[in-house]
Amino acid sequence: MPRNIIDVTDLTVEEIGGLIATAEDIIANPAKYQDACAHRQLATLFFEPSTRTRLSFESAMLALGGSVLGFSEAASSSAAKGETVGDTVHTVSCYADVIAMRHPKEGAPYAAAQFSEVPIINAGDGGHNHPTQTLTDLLTIHREKGRLDGFTIGFCGDLKFGRTVHSLVSALSRYENVRFVLISPAELKLPRYVKEEALKKRGIPYEQTESLEEVMPRLDILYMTRVQRERFFNEEDYLRLKDSYILTPEKLEAAKPDLSILHPLPRVNEISVAVDKDPRAAYWKQVKNGKFIRMALILKLLDIRV
Amino acid sequence: MPRNIIDVTDLTVEEIGGLIATAEDIIANPAKYQDACAHRQLATLFFEPSTRTRLSFESAMLALGGSVLGFSEAASSSAAKGETVGDTVHTVSCYADVIAMRHPKEGAPYAAAQFSEVPIINAGDGGHNHPTQTLTDLLTIHREKGRLDGFTIGFCGDLKFGRTVHSLVSALSRYENVRFVLISPAELKLPRYVKEEALKKRGIPYEQTESLEEVMPRLDILYMTRVQRERFFNEEDYLRLKDSYILTPEKLEAAKPDLSILHPLPRVNEISVAVDKDPRAAYWKQVKNGKFIRMALILKLLDIRV
Amino acid sequence: MPRNIIDVTDLTVEEIGGLIATAEDIIANPAKYQDACAHRQLATLFFEPSTRTRLSFESAMLALGGSVLGFSEAASSSAAKGETVGDTVHTVSCYADVIAMRHPKEGAPYAAAQFSEVPIINAGDGGHNHPTQTLTDLLTIHREKGRLDGFTIGFCGDLKFGRTVHSLVSALSRYENVRFVLISPAELKLPRYVKEEALKKRGIPYEQTESLEEVMPRLDILYMTRVQRERFFNEEDYLRLKDSYILTPEKLEAAKPDLSILHPLPRVNEISVAVDKDPRAAYWKQVKNGKFIRMALILKLLDIRV
Repeated sequence: MPRNIIDVTDLTVEEIGGLIATAEDIIANPAKYQDACAHRQLATLFFEPSTRTRLSFESAMLALGGSVLGFSEAASSSAAKGETVGDTVHTVSCYADVIAMRHPKEGAPYAAAQFSEVPIINAGDGGHNHPTQTLTDLLTIHREKGRLDGFTIGFCGDLKFGRTVHSLVSALSRYENVRFVLISPAELKLPRYVKEEALKKRGIPYEQTESLEEVMPRLDILYMTRVQRERFFNEEDYLRLKDSYILTPEKLEAAKPDLSILHPLPRVNEISVAVDKDPRAAYWKQVKNGKFIRMALILKLLDIRV
Repeated sequence: MPRNIIDVTDLTVEEIGGLIATAEDIIANPAKYQDACAHRQLATLFFEPSTRTRLSFESAMLALGGSVLGFSEAASSSAAKGETVGDTVHTVSCYADVIAMRHPKEGAPYAAAQFSEVPIINAGDGGHNHPTQTLTDLLTIHREKGRLDGFTIGFCGDLKFGRTVHSLVSALSRYENVRFVLISPAELKLPRYVKEEALKKRGIPYEQTESLEEVMPRLDILYMTRVQRERFFNEEDYLRLKDSYILTPEKLEAAKPDLSILHPLPRVNEISVAVDKDPRAAYWKQVKNGKFIRMALILKLLDIRV
Repeated sequence: MPRNIIDVTDLTVEEIGGLIATAEDIIANPAKYQDACAHRQLATLFFEPSTRTRLSFESAMLALGGSVLGFSEAASSSAAKGETVGDTVHTVSCYADVIAMRHPKEGAPYAAAQFSEVPIINAGDGGHNHPTQTLTDLLTIHREKGRLDGFTIGFCGDLKFGRTVHSLVSALSRYENVRFVLISPAELKLPRYVKEEALKKRGIPYEQTESLEEVMPRLDILYMTRVQRERFFNEEDYLRLKDSYILTPEKLEAAKPDLSILHPLPRVNEISVAVDKDPRAAYWKQVKNGKFIRMALILKLLDIRV
């Protein structure tokens, strides 16, 4: 059976290190990789739309000299004719060399992978996993800090429903001496099971607070996420808290000069556009890193060495 | 005017033999063909969605080193602005070197071909023609049996509305010594005009039965199709008959050891997933053959010899 | 900041001359350009569908050996998640080397360009600008007449709402000795501001008439556009006038033997299909020119010299 990437923990710490090394070599020597996937095909099967993720995968494969086919929403797929997702994926695995699949249902990529003749990359399944986002975050931290250990990282915003936060907390818990600061309204705290599984079990210390401003001076990395109005139990809380979780140049005055600001995007208004020009803003670099780490992952799954 | 493939009978028996030979050479020596269509463009104009067929065409062109553009449903097309299909196809024929076109209306690809400056391949027009499916079926039979004559083939399921059955019966009637067994409920028998045209006129013997189990031991090839509930006149008949047309490992116990099971896919439940592991199941190989025969057809229409 | 093409007047007369020269060299020596954009990516961001324009851009990039990614309607885009157009374009500019963007809102491509890290080509913004259509028209005139000055051009149909007419009138006003004949019903005359800005200010003479037949014998070029029923103030006027603006072989009997008939397409019925065979019909050649001038423009914006 081919190798699949459904959850970021399908990869060992060593494998993640290898992917980051490859991505950084791609960034340094893009021409070396520009024909690495010549005559290979990536299929992007997006059972729900996600332009950002789909285009990141597609540009990654094209930058490797490969080609791309697929669909961008379920309406255009055979699913409409009553075919199982397993059969759809099996069919496409007869055409392409690797598949990036997004599905609104948790677990669908794992189930589909049982029917595929080629490697499957989970490009997001409901509120569950999105391993290439986590790899993107890890590459960005590595490029910004030069390492994946020994720093204080703050997660700010909706820590309850934000799957990218859960995955990144889990992934970082495998590295030494990472200090976690969890900044959110009470309603949107990191779920108990994530804290148990990723932090407490391993004896990793963490801190919870409602105040971004209070902890700002101590952060090496600030991972922002969106706070959606509809997540709040009552309007009052929302109005009281919403501004505390909007990052502005003013709030950044108290931050370290070498802070790195990450955000998985898309943003609505939780980072002011004025922050984009701050040299500490790393989220647009993060977008580019998403392409490079996907290039590295495709090479790994196709077992192509350059 | 360019050469078009609207109906499988637009091709002579000799031409079909040539396509099968090319496809088998592609399978044996894929690298030989990987740049054959470099700098050529295929347009896929799907006025109704069909992911399976579209991706098969696209992966075929990409595997030949060509590139692909087009649309996957009419909503995104100029048709919405009141343009005729002829003008849309004429326009695209100014951009691309060959067109694969699917349309819900019977005859639309034939009509459109009159306005095209490049070859048109009919990728399905309503319940009418779908010549590349029939070519796929013929290549699969040839690869499984080593020949296109001298065997007993059973068609099972909905033989009334299944256009792939009509086309394959017609196509096979041009070969020697093919014995046809038509297995269906009374309501879903092969239409009289197909029997007249393809079989009786040529004096080809055939047998009609309601029982798959009865004829199973004699079949060299079994071509399964879907039986849709809504095709039955009454619910009683549906309930009585539906299980007889579901292929299971149990029913296959009575079959020849070298039987080949085909199905145009997608399936709903007419072949149990447990059958997929049976070495006689040829329908997933059939999916791959669909790509290879389309590669051969594109080469032929672009007049490219490798 | 990268160079963008939002309005055709973003280009000088000299630059337009250069693009036309490149396009004509591409037509003469296509093989010379077939790998010019190897390893480069064009993103087509169509926030509203326009198959014709999108496929023209895509086939242009593919014919240069580049590759293509993007989306064909807003529904599949991140816009649905509340992201600003600026952020969407910024994101895609992290993946691709050049962007062709279409948007229903006037000015959207200009605004978006402020956030892009790569050149933006406006592929149409509402009823506003569509510079590559105007470049297509200019290339077509140049290929038909061998020059861009010293001729009489008639614009016929809906001159009020047809943005392609406004742009072409403005663009041609920069050349010497072009005589303009504006043929339309009173309700659909060229807007006063276009006449002021493009013609009167420069002292360029023009003539307005309701009768195509009257002026036909004097025209060197006839630029047809669609007359939409819903543009008329009353049904009576529509019925009285509609036939005068339908081009037929009969009406063409009075025309010069070297007339060139242009139309931006799609047409509904304003040019009879019988005219397609007339050697003076240049609108299908115009479709092909649209691909060639876009190839030239992509090369210019990517600063690639062949």
